[in-house]
Order: sequence, then structure tokens, then C-alpha cells
Amino acid sequence: MHYELKGRVDMKKIKLNISYIGTAYCGWQVQPNAVSVQQRVQDAVEKTFGKRYPLTGCSRTDSGVHARSFVCTVELDENANNIPCERIPLVMNRHLPTDIAVRQAEEAEDDFHPRYSCLGKAYEYVFYDSPVRDPFLEGRVAHILPRLDENAMNEAATQIVGNQDFRSFMASGSKIEDTVRTVYDCRVSREGDMVKLYISADGFLYNMVRIIAGTLAEVGHHKRTKEEVRATIDSRDRKNSGQTAPPEGLYLYEVFYRKEKENEEG
Amino acid sequence: MHYELKGRVDMKKIKLNISYIGTAYCGWQVQPNAVSVQQRVQDAVEKTFGKRYPLTGCSRTDSGVHARSFVCTVELDENANNIPCERIPLVMNRHLPTDIAVRQAEEAEDDFHPRYSCLGKAYEYVFYDSPVRDPFLEGRVAHILPRLDENAMNEAATQIVGNQDFRSFMASGSKIEDTVRTVYDCRVSREGDMVKLYISADGFLYNMVRIIAGTLAEVGHHKRTKEEVRATIDSRDRKNSGQTAPPEGLYLYEVFYRKEKENEEG
Repeated sequence: MHYELKGRVDMKKIKLNISYIGTAYCGWQVQPNAVSVQQRVQDAVEKTFGKRYPLTGCSRTDSGVHARSFVCTVELDENANNIPCERIPLVMNRHLPTDIAVRQAEEAEDDFHPRYSCLGKAYEYVFYDSPVRDPFLEGRVAHILPRLDENAMNEAATQIVGNQDFRSFMASGSKIEDTVRTVYDCRVSREGDMVKLYISADGFLYNMVRIIAGTLAEVGHHKRTKEEVRATIDSRDRKNSGQTAPPEGLYLYEVFYRKEKENEEG
Repeated sequence: MHYELKGRVDMKKIKLNISYIGTAYCGWQVQPNAVSVQQRVQDAVEKTFGKRYPLTGCSRTDSGVHARSFVCTVELDENANNIPCERIPLVMNRHLPTDIAVRQAEEAEDDFHPRYSCLGKAYEYVFYDSPVRDPFLEGRVAHILPRLDENAMNEAATQIVGNQDFRSFMASGSKIEDTVRTVYDCRVSREGDMVKLYISADGFLYNMVRIIAGTLAEVGHHKRTKEEVRATIDSRDRKNSGQTAPPEGLYLYEVFYRKEKENEEG
């Protein structure tokens, strides 16, 4: 009883919301011989709180993939420098490179886990179909030519929505057995020379968004019909779907959790 | 007569519209011991057309300043590789670094000059007043805190519009005698955490936009009133205006010329 109380008092779980440009990194997860986002954030945690505290992320992200909103937690103990939550982004950002930033910090419940508490995620995939490149978008969009038919893509995107087996959109090397996921929303729209795919689901298979993006791009080039997208899903075979679209167009957009207040604590 | 005709046939003036992120450059103009945008474009001209042809820009831009739309001309002769205008951006962009791109190319009249034919220019200055930085905006906006009152700034901006002596907004080292310019438009608006100043004029003095931005930022912090901005202009003294806002927030936005069709050729 004493220890449990002590544990509760001394441990503090901080939920961090971070943004990063993935270009320079091998993804979130620490890997040998490559620089990861996690490594950079871990270094900033050490400089900010005085010690190397455990850091847990909501997902791996692939090499070169960006995040508008990535959630991770830091577990501090009683020895950690005491910094009010609203000051944490300012302090940590001083210790982070310019392509990574902590956007928000708040105290999380003891049982909150960035990955296991996650109810779903949203991604955005951005194509750029201007014949000439824009230096301000370099590395942040996937160039594609000829022009995409975004209406055909949006029509076909309706096939992706629902509780289905998405095996056709899973990277062939992946070992996952249960390939059924629920896609809540999948839509395509144009903003000038950018064609944006927004997709939210309870979970994603490895490379799922990029393979869906590559498949819908074929629809945008009238090389595949909406009905063929339906048939591709039903075939449950990676061979029938399109290419994996390049990482620079992909953004982890939002990570969904239960609202704090609704949390029922045991 | 023969020579004049020959000259007309063999010379070809190409008007290029380019975009660049200024961060890595000392500005447009070639300078010793520094890399300029002009130098990079000049190299691409050589690789594209087979020789070093004269390149003329519409303005210098300062070190670190960006351009959404910068106009320059290349004067080709009969020996230049013959590339149709619509292909020029694609070919030149292969020879340019990713932070510079040719967006458009068209043939210009013989007497067209990027600087002397220019009727005016528009700039945008972008402040970012979120307490935490956004990695996607790094180097592309000027961070400022505390929050700006964009409405007060927009009110004060009305004072800038008109045909006036802008000596108060000219860098103190500048040797220009005639400091009267006509500002057509000057307005401030907010987009999320960005506060954007748009200004167009028949011409600008050295550092004029950045000093106006710095002065209006003081209005946004309630350190200067609209009436004081009026008094600052009337004083014709640089000492009374605000600081020169940093280069990373500044964009050459548009360069105005007479419409081609309206050109009266002698």
C-alpha cells in the first residue's frame, strides 16, 4: 500500500505531441547505423529532465515519412527536473533540431499507453501533379505526372471504407496474421496542384496507406477503375494492388485516444 | 538594315519566372565568397543552352529572403540549344538545386527588361506567433512573441498606402535620393498562427518592407499606435521606425509588367 501510493506520487507520465519532417530520419524507431526521430527526442528528454527516461511512441513511421502529430510518452521519476507541462515544449525545443518540435505536453493517466490506448489514426498522403516543381514543397509531397483525376480517385476511395480484409494493401514481407481493419474515412480532394488523400482507421497494416495511395493514383491516371479497386481488395493479394507510393508524400496526421475525462480509472 | 534584321532573327530573349527558398543564398546577385541564386541559375542556363548567356534579374533580394515569383531574362543567340519555351522549366530544373525552380518560361519582346519594364512589385511578410515552433515552417516565417494584434496592425497599415516619402523606412546606409514611392496596397491578416503582411508598390527602398514589418509588429504588440505610425512616416527619419524584421519572413510575391498584348513596339 505504501509503495503503491509512493509509486503514484513519484512517477509522472508526460504525453508529448510532436511534429517532424521525416526526410533526414530512418523513421521514429531507433535503428543501428541510422538516425531516428526517437533518438533525437530521447536526447532532448535527457537534456531537459536531467536523465535518460523511458520514451514510448505511438507507432513506428517509415524512413522519410512526416508527422504533423505524433504522440509519445516519457516516464519521469522523482529525480527529474520539475518543469510545468506548459513549459516543456519550449524547453525541449531548445534541445531539438529544427525539423522536430514538441507541440504540446500534458500529464497522462498512469495506464495511458501511446500505442495500446490508441483508438485509431489518420494519415494524409499528398501528391503534387504540376509539370514543374515548387521549391517550397520539395521533399514534402510526391511528384506525379500526368495530372491526376481526383474525382475518379475520390469515387474509388469509397471502396476502401469499412471493416474489411486489407491484405492486398499490406507490404509483402509483413508477418501480421489478422489483416482486417476498419477504415472510417477515405477521401481525395484537390487543392491547386496538390491532390490529398485523407484516410482514418482503427489501425493500419505495414505500408497500407502508401499502397492505397499508389493504387488510387492508377485510378487517377485511368489505368484502374473503381470496380477493379473493389476486385483488388477482394482478391486479398498484394500482387493485384498498385505500387507503394514514395514516403515523402505521407503524413501521420492525427492519433485518436479516448477523451481524458471519459477515462474510467480502476 | 541587314544587321538589324539579322539581330532580330538571331537574338531571343527568354523571360523566366522562378521560385526559390532564400535560406542558403546571399540573395539574387552574384557576390564574392558567397553563393547567390543568380549563380545557380546562370550555371543551369549554361547546362541547358550550351553556353554562358547573359542573365538579368528584376531585383536584388537580400540574403535569406525568399521568392515565390522572381523574373529574369536570358539573352540567347543563334548558337543556343533550341528548346521550346514550354520545355525550358523541365530542362533547367534538372540542373538546379531543389531550393530553386523555374516555374515558367516565355519569349519576351526585345525591349523587355526585368527591372526597367517593371511597373511594381508585391511582397508578403509572414510572422508566426505560436508559442511553439512548427518544423514545417522553420526558416520560412519570422517567429515572434507575444501574440500579435493583427487588427491593430491592419488598421495602422492603412497609413502606409499612398504616394508618400518613405525615408523613415529606408535602411540608414542607403544612398537613394528620391525616397517617394506609391504603395498601392498594404494589409495584414491572420491565418491560424501566421500573421501575413501583403504590400504592393511601384517600387521599394532598401529594406523598406522589413522595416515596415518591424514597425507594424510594434503596433501588433501595442507599443506603437496608428497615429504614431503616421508621425513616423512624416518624420522622414529612420530613427523613428521599428526594427528591420528578419529576412526569413520575407517573400517577393509578384512582379508586375504591362500585359504583352498592350506593348507598343516602336
